[in-house]
Amino acid sequence: MFEQTDKTEIASLGEFGLIDHLTKHIVIKNKSSIKGVGDDAAVLDFEGKKTLISTDMLLEGIHFDLAFTPLKHLGYKAIQVNLSDIYAMNGIASQVTVSLGFSSKFPLEAIEELYAGMLLACEKFNVDLIGGDTTSSRQGLVISITSIGYADEKDITYRNGAQEGDLICVSGDLGGAYVGLQLLEREKQVYLANPNIQPDLEGKDYIVERQLKPEARIDIIDLLAKLKIKPTSMIDVSDGLASEILHITRQSKKGCKIYEEKIPLDPMTAETAREFGLDPTVCALNGGEDYELLFTIKQADYDSMKHDVDISIIGYITEESAGNYLITKAGNVHELKAQGWNAFTSTNS
Amino acid sequence: MFEQTDKTEIASLGEFGLIDHLTKHIVIKNKSSIKGVGDDAAVLDFEGKKTLISTDMLLEGIHFDLAFTPLKHLGYKAIQVNLSDIYAMNGIASQVTVSLGFSSKFPLEAIEELYAGMLLACEKFNVDLIGGDTTSSRQGLVISITSIGYADEKDITYRNGAQEGDLICVSGDLGGAYVGLQLLEREKQVYLANPNIQPDLEGKDYIVERQLKPEARIDIIDLLAKLKIKPTSMIDVSDGLASEILHITRQSKKGCKIYEEKIPLDPMTAETAREFGLDPTVCALNGGEDYELLFTIKQADYDSMKHDVDISIIGYITEESAGNYLITKAGNVHELKAQGWNAFTSTNS
Repeated sequence: MFEQTDKTEIASLGEFGLIDHLTKHIVIKNKSSIKGVGDDAAVLDFEGKKTLISTDMLLEGIHFDLAFTPLKHLGYKAIQVNLSDIYAMNGIASQVTVSLGFSSKFPLEAIEELYAGMLLACEKFNVDLIGGDTTSSRQGLVISITSIGYADEKDITYRNGAQEGDLICVSGDLGGAYVGLQLLEREKQVYLANPNIQPDLEGKDYIVERQLKPEARIDIIDLLAKLKIKPTSMIDVSDGLASEILHITRQSKKGCKIYEEKIPLDPMTAETAREFGLDPTVCALNGGEDYELLFTIKQADYDSMKHDVDISIIGYITEESAGNYLITKAGNVHELKAQGWNAFTSTNS
Repeated sequence: MFEQTDKTEIASLGEFGLIDHLTKHIVIKNKSSIKGVGDDAAVLDFEGKKTLISTDMLLEGIHFDLAFTPLKHLGYKAIQVNLSDIYAMNGIASQVTVSLGFSSKFPLEAIEELYAGMLLACEKFNVDLIGGDTTSSRQGLVISITSIGYADEKDITYRNGAQEGDLICVSGDLGGAYVGLQLLEREKQVYLANPNIQPDLEGKDYIVERQLKPEARIDIIDLLAKLKIKPTSMIDVSDGLASEILHITRQSKKGCKIYEEKIPLDPMTAETAREFGLDPTVCALNGGEDYELLFTIKQADYDSMKHDVDISIIGYITEESAGNYLITKAGNVHELKAQGWNAFTSTNS
């Protein structure tokens, strides 16, 4: 995919050239970023607010496939995935650090594409890139991102605050990123079998974009602030709905009931899932990578939220001993199990 | 190297088992660590002080060789390398996040060794491990660490504050880590040629330890505070003295003169370098990984510092137009060039 005619060898930039080259256009936007790239450490000032820190590692062949992931999208997604964790604390993301490992065979232009996607995400979400590391890799592309943010102590929303009777809410729709991945993997196999066949993704833009270019839900954080609702617990949906709700109930020492008919599914997600012989609900429960926000609210906050079309109420919190259950459309009761993405068995289930 | 008889497959721990298993013994020590492992993000409170952030990535085959690096040492070193950046800002390190990528072939016991080394370093340097990520890797071992610390604004020491006439100081001695690496690589080749021959490292403990188990110089930061000296600039020596002093002079828009005879060398480093046909001074200038502190002080602070045997004054800052020079023992003048470790040409020079 790097068949550009103009390729620049990274080594030609010299010892300090690469970082300088990649970071020279960074303009610091946040008052809290006192010193960014260029010293042993970045210096930040959160002026009495609490500091939030989260970190993620993305490895080629595990988290992304360069055969169908444009580098600019990958950079954008890598930042989104991380900012999503700060929003899931009901915080404001303000800085990221970016560490990259890549083969010396990568031309500068490829790294520029990746970086351009990262900076686009930073620009859109008003976040400063304040530091990092670049190194040669003998293996594949390695991306490690740390995101930093802040919040007033009273606003921070943990996973462990859900109370019995609280309503379980989720933003947007689920399962699309997983079904999009199935589609991209199918087209990759078709392409490998016959490189003259063009990928057939027509009409599937939404789910392909859910996989390649997810958007962290800062708008939901803004909305909650506007509605003066503080969730009792919150988490972002990276591993699938089942896994995430179990994090909340486990840490809150509660149980839950979720209703299949209430789980938000985009029609294209459902239709494409069926084309693959998959149950759309299972894609939502176990698929992952949707980067929606899952949160619980007090029943008293229901009236403020009920008119928001982009938030679905999918169930409620019970006492711990009642367990964690899904009520199907047919009225059957299934115990919820975390079957999300387990990197150590390398299965998506 | 993982030929233990008791091996536990990571996958047997289940979806959330690994993180729980590795982190269950962590006891938070710093008041600034409000919430550590277990939520979307960690929560910190620096109570009006500035926040410092630094990050490093270590890749197998580039930064370490598991053929001669015990995993516990590797974990210890990975943390040290990162804390060193916080100390180089004249700050206090207080938290780290640790992201790991490793093959599913790694048994749990191997990851426990690595983690034990990390936690030992955290314990010794009074730092909390507050979060991270673990993921499967198809390639090799991948370690990404972010360190977090704090400082009063007036104490923070940047690279760009050196003034004409300031004295250039360095802690400890230099070149040992690089010469230690040469020794370990030689013994690896001997072993590969004939596995019955035991490594011959007798009497070389100091330089082997400089490579495998460096110690970040928090004691120098404490000493400077006790002496009431604030350096005018500071950096840690990760890439070799030449590269680091050029960072300081470039960012301070100054020049420098360094005297070869003043560069601190341990006798074992010098002797072993010569065994390899290397010039000990070149090892100090370009070798890297010593993790000593290089800093500049006002001449007025000389009297307070001159009796400290673990700090050497190796030269002074000049005006920018005077350039950056090394004065050799023979009185020759050489321009200083950054020839430190360049990961993109994979050379140690």
